Amino acid sequence: MELFVGIDLGGTAIKLGLVSRDGKLVKTHQVPTKAESRERDIIVSNLKEALHSLLSGMEGVKAIGIGVPGGVDKKHGMIRFMPNIQPLENYALADDLEKSFGIPVAIDNDANNAARGEYIFGAGKKYRDFVLITLGTGIGGGIFINGDVYGGVANFAGEVGHMKIVPEGRPCGCGLNGCWEAYGSATAMIKRATGLVAMGKHTTLARVGEMSAKVIFDEAKKGDALALEVVDEACRYLGIGVANLIHLFNPEAVIVGGGVSHAGDFLFDRIRKYASLYAKTEMFETCEIIPAALVNDAGVMGSAALALMTLDKRQGT
Amino acid sequence: MELFVGIDLGGTAIKLGLVSRDGKLVKTHQVPTKAESRERDIIVSNLKEALHSLLSGMEGVKAIGIGVPGGVDKKHGMIRFMPNIQPLENYALADDLEKSFGIPVAIDNDANNAARGEYIFGAGKKYRDFVLITLGTGIGGGIFINGDVYGGVANFAGEVGHMKIVPEGRPCGCGLNGCWEAYGSATAMIKRATGLVAMGKHTTLARVGEMSAKVIFDEAKKGDALALEVVDEACRYLGIGVANLIHLFNPEAVIVGGGVSHAGDFLFDRIRKYASLYAKTEMFETCEIIPAALVNDAGVMGSAALALMTLDKRQGT
Repeated sequence: MELFVGIDLGGTAIKLGLVSRDGKLVKTHQVPTKAESRERDIIVSNLKEALHSLLSGMEGVKAIGIGVPGGVDKKHGMIRFMPNIQPLENYALADDLEKSFGIPVAIDNDANNAARGEYIFGAGKKYRDFVLITLGTGIGGGIFINGDVYGGVANFAGEVGHMKIVPEGRPCGCGLNGCWEAYGSATAMIKRATGLVAMGKHTTLARVGEMSAKVIFDEAKKGDALALEVVDEACRYLGIGVANLIHLFNPEAVIVGGGVSHAGDFLFDRIRKYASLYAKTEMFETCEIIPAALVNDAGVMGSAALALMTLDKRQGT
Repeated sequence: MELFVGIDLGGTAIKLGLVSRDGKLVKTHQVPTKAESRERDIIVSNLKEALHSLLSGMEGVKAIGIGVPGGVDKKHGMIRFMPNIQPLENYALADDLEKSFGIPVAIDNDANNAARGEYIFGAGKKYRDFVLITLGTGIGGGIFINGDVYGGVANFAGEVGHMKIVPEGRPCGCGLNGCWEAYGSATAMIKRATGLVAMGKHTTLARVGEMSAKVIFDEAKKGDALALEVVDEACRYLGIGVANLIHLFNPEAVIVGGGVSHAGDFLFDRIRKYASLYAKTEMFETCEIIPAALVNDAGVMGSAALALMTLDKRQGT
């Protein structure tokens, strides 16, 4: 059996998994990232140790894929910026691991890998051209064109969350304003709900513990009018952004992942409704708006998909 | 010498040209479209006659490219919708001409061909990934990815003019609102200027004859404050849209064509300024924002580029 390593390298934890060609996650492992050491050697040694643990006793491992929350120069296999694990910036991590482990290693941005994961193992199997968006603290994006990730000149393409949809709109964490993720992300919903609660509005959200997108959706589903307003407003903006993606990419599908996508039909029905209002009918009708299939292990599976695609490319298949 | 036919099939006129591989327009011809006949046979016969006139006495003609203001199903070489010349909708025009003339014939949307024209003969020669926008009565777009037009699932990709940039914004000719072209096109500028003049504002624009984008730019350049405001507002919105394209496509260049692009540095300096404010610095800095090289003959040259690329693809070069 051919196995592929997927590494989800986050600021707090490194999640590793071994995935078969048919998408079975056969072994997992997790260790702290040790980013707080601020020492490249410590972080890299720690990662290699975790990899050795994962690989111990396993046969048929063909390639390693790594996903990181940052900008990756794919041509040189180098992370160009990664605020959460700065010591790995401008380091040829893929080369290092390839020398150490003797199998192909590739690295890319985690949103791009999430799109690869859906393409190889998930909801994107039947498409060649689709856009994956991840709704979480921000809105990430991976663009699939002709069966592969489209990265653009510096592999930064798909920064969908920073598409400006409201001139002089809400400030965004990136320093710009009016960005899509300032209106449609979990963070945006939480801010909006928290603000409304602080204003003393009548809502069951005033009685929940920690505010989260899940809590807001849950209260909206139970019928709380204010929670529903927050959900509906976010979905309206999500619909605007999805309509823009449809106009620009004319994709076969927009696949929606990330934590918020757990909200299910309650979310998707609304995104579809608003996208249908804001997109040209003939382009909307040929685009499916569907949930991602990989959720909990999306990071590991996406990186394993990168490993698989890298191996197949090097073998010319 | 190899020659390629470029046909710019518009609602009023058919412009035809013979173009050499190195981009010389060696012969042109123009006839009325006869769209008002509302008869497919009359329009097609008329087109064939014009083609025979163009080709008469010429040798080395290798392929024919056609550009139309409408939606083209490239796979079947068929125009799917073209409001200005409806009798040609759902007609296999490329097949018909290929049988009649015995050389490869291809057809595509005029904005896609404009991008091909820049790629083969113009300002896009050195790029593989760029976005072409045409600023005229609307805002058209052609997306170049990896050295070819990206059309998406139904060849409708690149509808950049209908990217929504203002929720509940100005009505657009397409029936939606807040579309980019309702803010950045010549039509938008003319509406804005005409409205301000009608309000009795003090401006030299009140003394011009017919309002046009050229007139507005000319008066702005001469120092009229109100004309400058109209230009500056349009450029601000153009900057927003260009920044969005940069975030989504991370292109090597955004190439700007169409009548409005004649305004030169006065336009480009402003688009660049606003795009730099609204785009992530690292993505803005790797993207050139430049004028198209083909302007007057952009339609014919773009269609000739389609002919050239079609021939080379069929010959596998």
